[in-house]
Amino acid sequence: MKQSQLFGRTLREAPADAQTAGTQLMLRAAIARPLAAGLYTWLPLGFRVARKVEQIIREEQDRIGAQEIRIPVITPAEYWKETGRWDTLEPVTFRTKDHGGHEYMIGYTHEELVMHHARNEILSYRQLPTMVYHFQEKGRDEQRPRAGLLRTREFVMKDAYSLDKDWEGLDRQYWAQHGAYERSFARMGLDAISVESDTGNMGGDVAHEFQVLTEVGEDRIIFCTKCDYRANMEKATRALPPEAAAPRDVPAFQQIATPGITSIDGLTASLRIEAKDLLKTLLMKDAAGNVVAVVMPGDRELNEPKLRKLLKTSDVKLAGEADFAAANGVAGFVGPNNLNAKILVDVSVAGGRPYVAGANKKDTHLGDVLFGRDFTGEKVDVHDVREGDACPKCGGAVAIKRGVEVGNIFKFGPYYADKMNASYLAEDGTRKPIMFGSYGIGIGRAVQTIMETNHDEKGLLWPLAVAPFHAHVVSLLGKDDSVRTSADELVAELEAAGIDVLYDDRDESAGVKFADSDLIGIPFRLTVSARTLKEGAVELKRRAEEKGAMVPRGEIIGKMRALIGERRA
Amino acid sequence: MKQSQLFGRTLREAPADAQTAGTQLMLRAAIARPLAAGLYTWLPLGFRVARKVEQIIREEQDRIGAQEIRIPVITPAEYWKETGRWDTLEPVTFRTKDHGGHEYMIGYTHEELVMHHARNEILSYRQLPTMVYHFQEKGRDEQRPRAGLLRTREFVMKDAYSLDKDWEGLDRQYWAQHGAYERSFARMGLDAISVESDTGNMGGDVAHEFQVLTEVGEDRIIFCTKCDYRANMEKATRALPPEAAAPRDVPAFQQIATPGITSIDGLTASLRIEAKDLLKTLLMKDAAGNVVAVVMPGDRELNEPKLRKLLKTSDVKLAGEADFAAANGVAGFVGPNNLNAKILVDVSVAGGRPYVAGANKKDTHLGDVLFGRDFTGEKVDVHDVREGDACPKCGGAVAIKRGVEVGNIFKFGPYYADKMNASYLAEDGTRKPIMFGSYGIGIGRAVQTIMETNHDEKGLLWPLAVAPFHAHVVSLLGKDDSVRTSADELVAELEAAGIDVLYDDRDESAGVKFADSDLIGIPFRLTVSARTLKEGAVELKRRAEEKGAMVPRGEIIGKMRALIGERRA
Repeated sequence: MKQSQLFGRTLREAPADAQTAGTQLMLRAAIARPLAAGLYTWLPLGFRVARKVEQIIREEQDRIGAQEIRIPVITPAEYWKETGRWDTLEPVTFRTKDHGGHEYMIGYTHEELVMHHARNEILSYRQLPTMVYHFQEKGRDEQRPRAGLLRTREFVMKDAYSLDKDWEGLDRQYWAQHGAYERSFARMGLDAISVESDTGNMGGDVAHEFQVLTEVGEDRIIFCTKCDYRANMEKATRALPPEAAAPRDVPAFQQIATPGITSIDGLTASLRIEAKDLLKTLLMKDAAGNVVAVVMPGDRELNEPKLRKLLKTSDVKLAGEADFAAANGVAGFVGPNNLNAKILVDVSVAGGRPYVAGANKKDTHLGDVLFGRDFTGEKVDVHDVREGDACPKCGGAVAIKRGVEVGNIFKFGPYYADKMNASYLAEDGTRKPIMFGSYGIGIGRAVQTIMETNHDEKGLLWPLAVAPFHAHVVSLLGKDDSVRTSADELVAELEAAGIDVLYDDRDESAGVKFADSDLIGIPFRLTVSARTLKEGAVELKRRAEEKGAMVPRGEIIGKMRALIGERRA
Repeated sequence: MKQSQLFGRTLREAPADAQTAGTQLMLRAAIARPLAAGLYTWLPLGFRVARKVEQIIREEQDRIGAQEIRIPVITPAEYWKETGRWDTLEPVTFRTKDHGGHEYMIGYTHEELVMHHARNEILSYRQLPTMVYHFQEKGRDEQRPRAGLLRTREFVMKDAYSLDKDWEGLDRQYWAQHGAYERSFARMGLDAISVESDTGNMGGDVAHEFQVLTEVGEDRIIFCTKCDYRANMEKATRALPPEAAAPRDVPAFQQIATPGITSIDGLTASLRIEAKDLLKTLLMKDAAGNVVAVVMPGDRELNEPKLRKLLKTSDVKLAGEADFAAANGVAGFVGPNNLNAKILVDVSVAGGRPYVAGANKKDTHLGDVLFGRDFTGEKVDVHDVREGDACPKCGGAVAIKRGVEVGNIFKFGPYYADKMNASYLAEDGTRKPIMFGSYGIGIGRAVQTIMETNHDEKGLLWPLAVAPFHAHVVSLLGKDDSVRTSADELVAELEAAGIDVLYDDRDESAGVKFADSDLIGIPFRLTVSARTLKEGAVELKRRAEEKGAMVPRGEIIGKMRALIGERRA
């Protein structure tokens, strides 16, 4: 491929709004271009990477027996209505109507559609297990697209769907996908780890995410420093310290004047206590408008995804003034005593010790409030685990790192079959629900994560397996045609040997050409110049290394074949 | 691939609404399934065909130097508004809005998006020529989806776009695409011919369609029976007969009483004249509400696409009552004399001879009406060519056949660049418009056309190059495991030899398995049974032939490799 005809030009400077190093390089190297917020066109260089990533995933899906299909982008409302996701997904999806007034969603994902086909195609246990997958555009109306291809509003996802007779079969296919994911990410140069995760708006219960640890990630991952426990913050739990024996004589709670003091910091300073000795009570409202009070120690943070999951709602937010009045709560002085609301008590609240809590009265708190004696409520786990907490598996200290979720797998069981009436005739003559799992990888996010984790200050550093080209031939043209002629020949020989070559045939300076080569980040650079011709050689430089070396012209094809082959194996 | 795990079941009967033989077989063989009118999911068997068709097209695009990219499905309104197609395409497109109120179209095609990228990426003549293409879903809100995958509301199109400095460059790339199309269709087993065509809502002037002749096609193609002239009916012209010398004494026109006679047939019967001696005058209204009168001989039909093109409008229809009144026309008795409307006179109307025409007065026609003397108007070509007309190129008789348009190519020139202000810095220092062409092939339509033209009464007959599998191994299971074991081994050996195998391992009768095999239509069937085992052989039958033949087991792999290789070459 001649660089003079390559569609897409490199940029000296990244646009000012490029948020991460990988995004800046993605734009500068002409990998993709935005059409609007969160909508990107893959340019030829980037699309070659995307296709290689796609092919790695395809091979690993085929290896575990998944069958490729293709479901439309435009999906009829009727199927989404069967599961209730027509409504719950509304805030994050694109909708359209045809001229006859029928409603459609641009597929957010495709569970409902696969389950619809499954209930028509699968009559008997003899057709199970089976597994299908497709690569298809998804539309998601993200409020804040970010970091180039990391979070966009349209992207191609490989989504696979397993269909089984029972839990054992589902378990087998779930872990087959887990293995396919490990191999896929490793092959594309991503160091992805699997962590337990929340199922969010997908339904079901068991799920894992594949996370690549990088500071540009938005997810927080909990790791045990002693054992192999790891989980997304949305799902992570901790081992609670043993409860102290109830102190013998806790006096009855008493009012404490706290004029104008409404913050944790204010209370700890004025009362000379620690945040963990306080109870904070959060009045929260779900998507349907129901209000609950969440009670937790003052040193702990609410984990909203855990609360949403618990309340089976798509959204929670702080309650408003009218809700406070209805609950008999006073903003800044809310406490669990005599509160007219459903009370959820986080498991971090200890049963045997006194706390300071809001009095539901202006400028007043209560001392010596005891859970169980002075208030009660449903025990729940809705707090954030934090650095240093005890691992739920071994008790060791946990640590937190940032990660990008590059894949996720969900074990739904009969969740979708029950809602969509998808059953098969079992061997025992009864009808049973089709057990279901789904498995997703976003192509653009994978490519952006590769860029975020493979670059230096000069540009990208593509892993060989996904590099847009194997070799970048750079010709430093001189006064006569000898360099061009020699470079043309070299490119023809390399291509005949099955090596993908980008050929910088442009009439530009060595400085411009080398800078572009570093920016684009093809693994091997081969320079042809008057100097290399004089030596009867080609200069071979790995992108990741500072210095190149002269390789005799007669040896270069064999050398390159070995290098490509070595890395491919 | 084991048939017992294949997702998608064959059907004994096609749904009653399947319109064509190919559609019936497509559904029965589990190639694709509808989700809603005109929205289909590719099942595994069908998707394997679609991928092979896609890969043939990709190879032929790469061969002429086109670079693969990928543009989103969700396309911002702003680009479409630059060319005016946001409005003109409204009736046939799907629209959506994000939650911030911004408008998008599900891409009907992608000219505007490519031209937008081109104006940003291409600064100088040194970056031209270049050519890009992509495979992407298109959304088209067709009022009447039909014939399975032949006309759907969402489909993957390969669309390519050429970008050039000048007409010569555009011409070169246009014909390079023409050649790539010829090779692509030939490789996938379609006998496609190129015909001149109208550019419709695409803009520009020069265009060709690739048509496959079949009775299920909706297009009518004009052929010269003497020379190589061929054109879509929407574009076809004819050589007009020489005008007769004006007759010496045509009397002034006179009223003829025609009480209640408003049809051509009624007039010819009652006045004892031929239809060609009459003038019919059609009051037509364009999309903007403008009314024109089209005058043509009574034996000729209006060609609406020609009229739309002439009027630069997306729609024409018969005018309504109010329009008749405004034009001073009387329905059933309209004529060109004293009509208060713009008059378009089809070239079929001869200048030197008298006609009978409507009098714009109830129950009245006029005799001896002369074009040029009694009425006048702009001469236009808006009539349908018909069987037996004279070829515009050689004067020979033309014939008409039905065809399916499987591809089209458009030479726009500066049309899009002018509207979108897309220019480059030319060698002479001036800014010039980027010359543009676009080139489309719909994957689903190609696959459906292959099915329509490759089947018999038992099922499909896939050409080897696009067949979902090369070989169909059918095991006729007996009392012991010997057949299964032998078939398992055969499949393993075939797959190791690089032959794609569908393996019918199901515990079904020979009748069911052979019927399914004929229905699915894989080119070679290999049967393993107690009988073939006894003979130390495998029965090899071509799908297209009635009878199979025994091939010694030791020779079958070599034989199959030769058969697949032969056909591939």
